[in-house]
Amino acid sequence: MNFTKTTEQDSKYNHLEKMSINELLININTEDKTVPKAVEKVIPNIEKLVQEIVVKLKTGGRLFYIGAGTSGRLGVVDASECPPTFGVSYDLVIGLIAGGETAIRKAVEFAEDSTTQGWKDLQKYQISNKDVVIGIAASGTTPYVIAALKKCNENNISTGCITCNAESPLALTAKFPVVAIVGPEFVTGSSRMKAGTAQKLILNMISTATMIQLGKIKGNKMVDMQLSNDKLVDRGVKMVMGELGINERLAKELLLKYGNVRNAINNYPLEKNKPSLFSAFKHLAIALPLLFIAPIVITIGFKALKKDGNFMLLIIGLLLGIIAIMITAFGLIKVSRSLFDKDSHDKN
Amino acid sequence: MNFTKTTEQDSKYNHLEKMSINELLININTEDKTVPKAVEKVIPNIEKLVQEIVVKLKTGGRLFYIGAGTSGRLGVVDASECPPTFGVSYDLVIGLIAGGETAIRKAVEFAEDSTTQGWKDLQKYQISNKDVVIGIAASGTTPYVIAALKKCNENNISTGCITCNAESPLALTAKFPVVAIVGPEFVTGSSRMKAGTAQKLILNMISTATMIQLGKIKGNKMVDMQLSNDKLVDRGVKMVMGELGINERLAKELLLKYGNVRNAINNYPLEKNKPSLFSAFKHLAIALPLLFIAPIVITIGFKALKKDGNFMLLIIGLLLGIIAIMITAFGLIKVSRSLFDKDSHDKN
Repeated sequence: MNFTKTTEQDSKYNHLEKMSINELLININTEDKTVPKAVEKVIPNIEKLVQEIVVKLKTGGRLFYIGAGTSGRLGVVDASECPPTFGVSYDLVIGLIAGGETAIRKAVEFAEDSTTQGWKDLQKYQISNKDVVIGIAASGTTPYVIAALKKCNENNISTGCITCNAESPLALTAKFPVVAIVGPEFVTGSSRMKAGTAQKLILNMISTATMIQLGKIKGNKMVDMQLSNDKLVDRGVKMVMGELGINERLAKELLLKYGNVRNAINNYPLEKNKPSLFSAFKHLAIALPLLFIAPIVITIGFKALKKDGNFMLLIIGLLLGIIAIMITAFGLIKVSRSLFDKDSHDKN
Repeated sequence: MNFTKTTEQDSKYNHLEKMSINELLININTEDKTVPKAVEKVIPNIEKLVQEIVVKLKTGGRLFYIGAGTSGRLGVVDASECPPTFGVSYDLVIGLIAGGETAIRKAVEFAEDSTTQGWKDLQKYQISNKDVVIGIAASGTTPYVIAALKKCNENNISTGCITCNAESPLALTAKFPVVAIVGPEFVTGSSRMKAGTAQKLILNMISTATMIQLGKIKGNKMVDMQLSNDKLVDRGVKMVMGELGINERLAKELLLKYGNVRNAINNYPLEKNKPSLFSAFKHLAIALPLLFIAPIVITIGFKALKKDGNFMLLIIGLLLGIIAIMITAFGLIKVSRSLFDKDSHDKN
């Protein structure tokens, strides 16, 4: 390989074993500050990749991350965050790591050197050209990842990558490459540091921007998040309170009833107007028998008028009819007000 | 709880669903740039925590990370990187996550709300006051983590924390708190973003600085890293070549023979001098029989001189003795030169 592996270049620092803890921390932090700036430079490339992902996901596709070691783990972490954060299925964003599940905790010897396993791992998910596959590798040379992406290209499956070495085999393989040049690491070659941070930032940007484009955020709120622990329930309650301007007790009741913030907010008009809807239906319930009885009384009233000139029944019938119509109209107005009244719940 | 949860405060941004992908990415990146600066402010606290960890690990203790959700995952990732990077055992830095192994990929419902499970999980590792336990929680309110740290305090086990909310219950519980105030997230409450990045940066700082203090880095090189894939073998070969100024073939031979960069470098003097050592021992092998034979010949020579005045044998014996002493001295000089000669291998 004739490209420059900046991730493997000698650290700008030396004699680390002689530095004080304070010096070590300051120097690491100095390097870390450069990472978001390196990511900033590749926003146009991230944009192209996200555009592709959004198109694919809108037409039923899935997003795969595939990597080895730290890169694989960061993909797994980002994928695992999508369901709780955005309420999507665990089948939508999938993180694969060379060596399988055990590799999340322990390095699996030479797992990343396989040129066949990556594609096999993808095939277990019936990968198709509806999907997008993002290869992650700081060095850009991981055989497991590159070989998998080549197979994807052959099979007309969209490919992207996140790497930290320009002109690396991975960058040249992916159709939508994202190459964040973070430069030499504080500890020479320790790409879990700056390169890993860049990968995490880019993964977060990809999944967050994609999910927002798919409508999973309302305003700036995670309205589809899972309520899988007390903190998230509390957060959801606060969102519902803020959105609808209601008290905590009612917000919590709504949230637990409808399972997520979006449904709680969408069902609030119905919930809020339940009492008035109920009274409207009570009106209709009274009006209905009256509407049924009135014509009968009027008919009998006409007959009585003809027969012996008694007009009392006719008047009673007409009055019943008028009352029934009035109650019905009043009820219908109440129902329509309840259903179509828009007040504070749409402020964002 | 009466403290301000800045991690849960309203995002500075709104109407995210109306932003273009480019706007989303630029805004996320703008927020990300603030993270290393927030971490910089807490370097003195990270320093105190690392000091404590180094003391504990030097006296046989271990480092535990304990967290839930994203925080737990980031601890698992950092812990998993220590053995390949620094060649330490998988028992030295241990990442625990609420809900156990399945929680690495899937949110386990209400796992983080348990106030007893964290301590139980730590006890499975026979936790003792030789160890250090770092609680990780962006919010600083995770019951699983706080309860575990309280139990540690009761049992005189050193505790630290990584959180993003000042005055949070977790920050008040840990003896060595690290509180990086990253402020509101781009997506309100989505603490996997800035808070998660701060946690990753701080975890990397803690483990890297600790391992350097424990002598796992030489110069700026990962001399103890595992050679668990081809990329790492290549990296190791380059380190050995650079350190010893030798060619690639020899460096690879040394590395594969001794298993890691440190041992390859330390054993190089022996390896390099093997041919000259061998020739020195050949000298000694010749001298030894001569040294044994010479006194016998001299004794017989003296007897012959006394008996019939023949001094030839005595002269031969003396010559053999002188030759033997010379060969021995020459051999010993060669051996000592081979073993104690310091040339280029100690330049860092």
